[in-house]
Amino acid sequence: MPTYRLDLAYDGSGFHGYARQADVRTVQGDLEDALFKHTGRVATSVAGRTDAGVHARGQVVSFHAAEPVDEARLLRSLNSQLAPEVAVTAVCRASDGFDARLSALSRRYRYQVLTTDVPDPFLHRYCWHAGHALAFDAMQEAAALFVGAHDFASFCRAAEGRSTVRTLLAAAWEDTGGGLLAFDVTATSFCHQMVRSLVALCVEIGRGRLAAAEVPAIFTARDRNAARGAAPPHGLTLWEVAYPAGDRP
Amino acid sequence: MPTYRLDLAYDGSGFHGYARQADVRTVQGDLEDALFKHTGRVATSVAGRTDAGVHARGQVVSFHAAEPVDEARLLRSLNSQLAPEVAVTAVCRASDGFDARLSALSRRYRYQVLTTDVPDPFLHRYCWHAGHALAFDAMQEAAALFVGAHDFASFCRAAEGRSTVRTLLAAAWEDTGGGLLAFDVTATSFCHQMVRSLVALCVEIGRGRLAAAEVPAIFTARDRNAARGAAPPHGLTLWEVAYPAGDRP
Repeated sequence: MPTYRLDLAYDGSGFHGYARQADVRTVQGDLEDALFKHTGRVATSVAGRTDAGVHARGQVVSFHAAEPVDEARLLRSLNSQLAPEVAVTAVCRASDGFDARLSALSRRYRYQVLTTDVPDPFLHRYCWHAGHALAFDAMQEAAALFVGAHDFASFCRAAEGRSTVRTLLAAAWEDTGGGLLAFDVTATSFCHQMVRSLVALCVEIGRGRLAAAEVPAIFTARDRNAARGAAPPHGLTLWEVAYPAGDRP
Repeated sequence: MPTYRLDLAYDGSGFHGYARQADVRTVQGDLEDALFKHTGRVATSVAGRTDAGVHARGQVVSFHAAEPVDEARLLRSLNSQLAPEVAVTAVCRASDGFDARLSALSRRYRYQVLTTDVPDPFLHRYCWHAGHALAFDAMQEAAALFVGAHDFASFCRAAEGRSTVRTLLAAAWEDTGGGLLAFDVTATSFCHQMVRSLVALCVEIGRGRLAAAEVPAIFTARDRNAARGAAPPHGLTLWEVAYPAGDRP
């Protein structure tokens, strides 16, 4: 059975997240409705199950088809069915055994915070409007403390019995100009609400309500209440998923 | 009576244009509902009456108030009422006799066209998805022919008895990267649907369906049917309005 990889981008504003649910609009629901016209019902695997309101630029989905499909035709058909909020940017035959979730080496997310007094009508769907300047260096100091292997229990929605130890490969803030700050974070995997919880903590630090030096104690607490909640979903975008070289699109 | 100038930006997607109409949501309607809480009912003047779906980054509105207003307080109040789709970027006292429409020296619009095969979920509200490469040099050649004083009757919705002669100060296409082309056009004033009609003609030329050399004959025809219709509104943004130096915000 040939395996296929789909790369997709979506504006999550109008969706109740990626994962299919009864009676609400989801990216998986829309995608599979379009896909199954070509492939019949198949099981799909996704690299990152994004929450309601979260966006993606480099989401990856895979499936095994009963028969070979025409990649170019499938790309055109999916885009004509899914536009304008979801775009399939590539369709390709993947190596046997490729699985979008299991084969992923790492995921990279980006979270945007707008620090200007005045909101921006063209960014409001894609950033959290903090509304005033933040102490960038203190936020950067906190981000550096996230890197490495840690127990992120204080930053994860509880999932009984599952480990909350994760390895962050990179985490850094970037001032992208115009008062927009972007947090880029890469890990082999994340637990639920982890990126948004790390961002909320950084913004509290940026507001001067907490010192970066207090971050290690919050990790040690292993208690969700020790952190600072979660930043709103619409500032978050799944940016890129990395695979072994042979599984690139 | 003190005169005030408001600078505003808006995502026009959810509005039936700038100008107030009964029973539908308009930018003027939302703005005046918020403004009149501070000033009582006053007459407002606007630099450019944008159509339904058209956006603005540098729209300007003026009004005379019965009494002085606190500019900083008005700015905050308007933004808290109008966010997230409309943002007031500045409130300032203007010189006596300033009128956003009558004092304007020129208006600059930008129209964005996306030429990639695959649509972009993050740009779909702000560009026209042409869906394939366009002949950039031919479009640029056409744009150069628009500059100067011409009768734009072929590019304007008929308004009986009104002159359709306009002076274009600048008109040029720019390749802004990622398959996105932007048309920047500046004139003392525009007639209705003029920018979108010029863009539609350029895109026809870019598609090779028409040569730039045929543009002069289309001007001479002074006939709407000689042109190529109008590009969709959502690609258009009122970018900037110029005033005499003393009337800058």
